[in-house]
Amino acid sequence: MPSKIEESAAVAVEKPNVPLKAKIEVGILGATGTVGQQFIALLDGHPWFRTTWLAASERSAGKRYGDLAWRLPSVTPAEAAGLSVDELRPGIGPKLVFSALDSSIAGQAEADFAAAGHIVLSNSRNHRMDPLVPLLIPEINPDHLGLLPAQRQKENRKGAIVTNPNCSTMFLSIALAALRKFQPKRVLVTTLQALSGAGYPGVASLDATANVIPFIDGEEEKIESETRKILGQLHGNGVAPHPMTLSATTTRVPVVNGHTEAISVEFEKPVTRDEVLAAFKNFSGEPQELKLPSAPPQPIIYLEGVNRPQPRLDVERDGGMVVHVGRLRVCPVLGYKFVILGHNTIRGAAGAAILNAELMAAKNLLA
Amino acid sequence: MPSKIEESAAVAVEKPNVPLKAKIEVGILGATGTVGQQFIALLDGHPWFRTTWLAASERSAGKRYGDLAWRLPSVTPAEAAGLSVDELRPGIGPKLVFSALDSSIAGQAEADFAAAGHIVLSNSRNHRMDPLVPLLIPEINPDHLGLLPAQRQKENRKGAIVTNPNCSTMFLSIALAALRKFQPKRVLVTTLQALSGAGYPGVASLDATANVIPFIDGEEEKIESETRKILGQLHGNGVAPHPMTLSATTTRVPVVNGHTEAISVEFEKPVTRDEVLAAFKNFSGEPQELKLPSAPPQPIIYLEGVNRPQPRLDVERDGGMVVHVGRLRVCPVLGYKFVILGHNTIRGAAGAAILNAELMAAKNLLA
Amino acid sequence: MPSKIEESAAVAVEKPNVPLKAKIEVGILGATGTVGQQFIALLDGHPWFRTTWLAASERSAGKRYGDLAWRLPSVTPAEAAGLSVDELRPGIGPKLVFSALDSSIAGQAEADFAAAGHIVLSNSRNHRMDPLVPLLIPEINPDHLGLLPAQRQKENRKGAIVTNPNCSTMFLSIALAALRKFQPKRVLVTTLQALSGAGYPGVASLDATANVIPFIDGEEEKIESETRKILGQLHGNGVAPHPMTLSATTTRVPVVNGHTEAISVEFEKPVTRDEVLAAFKNFSGEPQELKLPSAPPQPIIYLEGVNRPQPRLDVERDGGMVVHVGRLRVCPVLGYKFVILGHNTIRGAAGAAILNAELMAAKNLLA
Amino acid sequence: MPSKIEESAAVAVEKPNVPLKAKIEVGILGATGTVGQQFIALLDGHPWFRTTWLAASERSAGKRYGDLAWRLPSVTPAEAAGLSVDELRPGIGPKLVFSALDSSIAGQAEADFAAAGHIVLSNSRNHRMDPLVPLLIPEINPDHLGLLPAQRQKENRKGAIVTNPNCSTMFLSIALAALRKFQPKRVLVTTLQALSGAGYPGVASLDATANVIPFIDGEEEKIESETRKILGQLHGNGVAPHPMTLSATTTRVPVVNGHTEAISVEFEKPVTRDEVLAAFKNFSGEPQELKLPSAPPQPIIYLEGVNRPQPRLDVERDGGMVVHVGRLRVCPVLGYKFVILGHNTIRGAAGAAILNAELMAAKNLLA
Repeated sequence: MPSKIEESAAVAVEKPNVPLKAKIEVGILGATGTVGQQFIALLDGHPWFRTTWLAASERSAGKRYGDLAWRLPSVTPAEAAGLSVDELRPGIGPKLVFSALDSSIAGQAEADFAAAGHIVLSNSRNHRMDPLVPLLIPEINPDHLGLLPAQRQKENRKGAIVTNPNCSTMFLSIALAALRKFQPKRVLVTTLQALSGAGYPGVASLDATANVIPFIDGEEEKIESETRKILGQLHGNGVAPHPMTLSATTTRVPVVNGHTEAISVEFEKPVTRDEVLAAFKNFSGEPQELKLPSAPPQPIIYLEGVNRPQPRLDVERDGGMVVHVGRLRVCPVLGYKFVILGHNTIRGAAGAAILNAELMAAKNLLA
Repeated sequence: MPSKIEESAAVAVEKPNVPLKAKIEVGILGATGTVGQQFIALLDGHPWFRTTWLAASERSAGKRYGDLAWRLPSVTPAEAAGLSVDELRPGIGPKLVFSALDSSIAGQAEADFAAAGHIVLSNSRNHRMDPLVPLLIPEINPDHLGLLPAQRQKENRKGAIVTNPNCSTMFLSIALAALRKFQPKRVLVTTLQALSGAGYPGVASLDATANVIPFIDGEEEKIESETRKILGQLHGNGVAPHPMTLSATTTRVPVVNGHTEAISVEFEKPVTRDEVLAAFKNFSGEPQELKLPSAPPQPIIYLEGVNRPQPRLDVERDGGMVVHVGRLRVCPVLGYKFVILGHNTIRGAAGAAILNAELMAAKNLLA
Repeated sequence: MPSKIEESAAVAVEKPNVPLKAKIEVGILGATGTVGQQFIALLDGHPWFRTTWLAASERSAGKRYGDLAWRLPSVTPAEAAGLSVDELRPGIGPKLVFSALDSSIAGQAEADFAAAGHIVLSNSRNHRMDPLVPLLIPEINPDHLGLLPAQRQKENRKGAIVTNPNCSTMFLSIALAALRKFQPKRVLVTTLQALSGAGYPGVASLDATANVIPFIDGEEEKIESETRKILGQLHGNGVAPHPMTLSATTTRVPVVNGHTEAISVEFEKPVTRDEVLAAFKNFSGEPQELKLPSAPPQPIIYLEGVNRPQPRLDVERDGGMVVHVGRLRVCPVLGYKFVILGHNTIRGAAGAAILNAELMAAKNLLA
Repeated sequence: MPSKIEESAAVAVEKPNVPLKAKIEVGILGATGTVGQQFIALLDGHPWFRTTWLAASERSAGKRYGDLAWRLPSVTPAEAAGLSVDELRPGIGPKLVFSALDSSIAGQAEADFAAAGHIVLSNSRNHRMDPLVPLLIPEINPDHLGLLPAQRQKENRKGAIVTNPNCSTMFLSIALAALRKFQPKRVLVTTLQALSGAGYPGVASLDATANVIPFIDGEEEKIESETRKILGQLHGNGVAPHPMTLSATTTRVPVVNGHTEAISVEFEKPVTRDEVLAAFKNFSGEPQELKLPSAPPQPIIYLEGVNRPQPRLDVERDGGMVVHVGRLRVCPVLGYKFVILGHNTIRGAAGAAILNAELMAAKNLLA
């Protein structure tokens, strides 16, 4: 995706490949939920960032983080375990905060933190479609960070809000970004989403065991709208959505981590299977060029195995930051079809926001 | 589907709604596998048929059926349990035989049985696409039984072969048949198929547990070709495939019974959501008119619940013979989209062949 | 278990095997939970009882029952669907009420209903260990109903409370009752319990999927105490607990329905394997003698298969009212060991309370 | 376990904590199965060993290892991927070979390799109970390696066979070894074993999904006999089994990795809960003293959480080499009870054999 890199050249990159002198302190809003825990796990030992402040709802406030239930298959990172959980108090805590807040409260809380001067890297859906909030995937639209000055001015914010997309949107967008030069016109996607995507306690086990739930509230709408914004063109103080049409069916399946998506795409331009395959294999972006700490060597790995990708075998590859593609073949209806897989709580959530912060750090946008 | 009923009027129906005097004896080829066991379970206490002969590979031949492993959640039906398993010997056993043979041997074995005078109601894939073999779904194409005279003549068979489609094709075909009057033009389907569809031992548990396998060998091709034959037009001694284009992605999910399918359809004719909904709800066919013993009251049940159909909650309804449809809504890409669910080893396999036999019995075609 | 029948002869049985003239109206407290739904499903078409009143917490009160979420794999029974859900108002509703209330409120609510004249057949744990409340399993201790006069007097109740045991206790108690004549002395049990035992939403799917949770709050204590009361001796106005010692470890496994239990028993009396086996096979009680509608033909079915019982294959047998036993063999430590299985929401909950009510009806104790 | 260390002092330890100069070449017998793959994964990057030879049945012989199906959630290690699979030819390949052979062929094959001069570190059951073959767990019985001279003499072997126990036996033995000083007298264990313990394809998914299989062929006998040999006393040219009595019930549950075991123990000596707890926490052995590369810091980790250990959350800790213990409490029947968990394909199989080889390397027994 060289053209993208060039487009974003106006945003100065001053410290590529250079570890920052002292680690940047970060806080986590909503530190006790599934995504909050994933933030803490991924930030443990991070070369640039250090978690020094945890905030959550009143219920957990005042407690030692290490005394709360930890539901990831690892031990609570020692540094975080020793922190005491604070309330959601804007202005307290580091300038850079990651938000894993529930959408029921994220809207106002994130705005308040941004107003108080925090750079809020949010995983919540609330502000994703705000016209002046970047819906950022560093491999795709780093130039969308150019919205920040206008956001600050209009909202009278000292800080800013930067969002990452919905998990299933993330993987689809990366796959489509690799194919952007063929001008995707119509896209049909059916998802098979993991249980961890619903948080904790999330889906009741009686609904999940040996079952499929063919509905995830609001998910199809997010895919159909967020993808177009992500792949849209920045001009002036806004993003013109990509003109493609999308249609999504989203389902929940009894998988722990890893969203699988079956995708069919129609392109404006004629294109051969070899060209599509090469586009997947050669896709790259700023995170790879800048060697950002959380960036996978390649954003997309194409798996040749006839029955791949599979959540159980593939989802943890490259730290959960890569999008797997497989089964590329002709779609008699739309043109080409393929299957993708991504780790929903890493590349699809906490890891996405961390990569966004790394990009901003590399571009000196966290100062 | 009134037009279909009229079309098939030439095939005389002499005994509608009338139980046969004495039960018709039936045999089962491949009686020890998953589908073979399902045949035996469904035929236990059947009002028209009585299982009197079981045949299987040499490994089981000579054994008492009740001494073999029974893997359904019920006890081996007493009558079948007392039978001794025979080898696959054409000419022995009742005229009517159901075939649950593995496709590795079904091709020749079924032809041999048909040559020896048996009416073979086959669930195997081998003969489905033979031009003179009906690929029968009684609600859709009962007139395709009109192929039998030509089949007998060409193949020099005293008996005949009649097939039912692949499980995932069955449910899709029934849904599309309900919408046939709107002239489906392009169809995209993604399936989430149950483990029992792979037989026993089938999928290894290490592959199935908390995983999705995005590939089922040969399944996509079957859906794309069988559906067009089923909905095709009988003329002279052949079936002209329906002109629609289909594209399928098939996946295996950790569900015991019940294939879920996400479907998008483009129609030639303009049609409203209400018309589509009414078409699902009003769909009916000969099995309902003739009140065949295994016919569900309605071939399709539309579920209003926003997160339905679900395998665990819905798949056993109406004895597993009904196709559930839900989530009908606009598809921005093709026109309409919806989700369907069917019981793969009942309506999608053994129950399908039994319904076919019931139709033939009602039409005096088993004599 | 002939001795037991004789012991209980003092409680007159006036209508054995005789269907009651008009159905007895029943109400259900806690009608919207997992067990409440199971009550409604089992009572649909019951020959003696008819559900005419549903009560639940304020959240559901006033709503049409058919409009609430139904989570069993069947449709909401028509008669119940048409009822409006009432609040928990003692004195309103039929004399006979089944309680599926959550233990957080069952204690007071059931006492209030009993005081107001209702016969409360409770599945909740709150009153099970009350000295004057029968912890009833009709095959084991029908004579414990003799506690009711003293209960009424002491608590000043016009009605009464009768309880059934905890699900895992139920199956263990029935197995031990069959062996009572050998004088069980020490019992070790490890359970593998199904998800439905935790109600809805119950266990989070992230905890349940491909996992074992080796702890169920309060369950081990219930098994160790309730079993001794159930098998205890009625004398005067109390029950002397059986002198055996029990030790339980309880675990949750990803099974939908069916608790498996691995049991080792030491007997006071020397006994051969054949004698133990015969005791299982010949066990019977009043429900079988009286042919109560919900009574299984035999309380215990011994399965000879080397790898049985299994939840998926066995749990639905005899309407879920039977206890399966298998794998009887010598235990080098205690004497004998075996594996049992029962349906936790039927024989272990709603079905148990219904069988209790049937026994009381047959003994004219509901008047 | 200091006394053990002293006992084994006669076996000279010449290179504790010292990385060997050049890596020792190792071969793997049965390289294509589940355990064979686990060997290759664990040996990838091993500081002392380097996999240079792979052998398997004729079916795979001659193929490039990287072209065979890899079923672990990682990529095939590059060095192994480039190897060509050899047939099982004794005398070919490195002196040190790990055996993951199926028990149907391991007996003769391992003997042949040992006769040809190989040191065979076997995970198969065939030779475990041979009187002169060490059934080795380095933390428990390193002195049992003293059997090797007699084994060589009697069997006329230039090489030798050293075995590790069955997976469920491994975890039980380590827990009991920690309590050895209290003189365990009677032990009751119920296991809940993971699917990967059955190899690949192993358990059929239709048997595994939402089910419990209360039987694993031969497993209970292995636990009851192997444990006593492991904890037995070496004297002269044999091992006197530990006098304790064991009774096991083994079940299969739908878990991918991790065997859970519920254990009750009676001791000869009076002991307090604190003493038992301290014994678990303080248990250590030669692998920890020698800092063997695969040795966990502590062989046992006691988890304080009320509902731990759990396979999904705990099994991967310390590289899968640690045994987790939790829920220590009084057992009313035998004395104390607790729950343990171990990784069946790592500490319970491949990792165990590798640790055995590391111990032998540190003791200069591979020369």
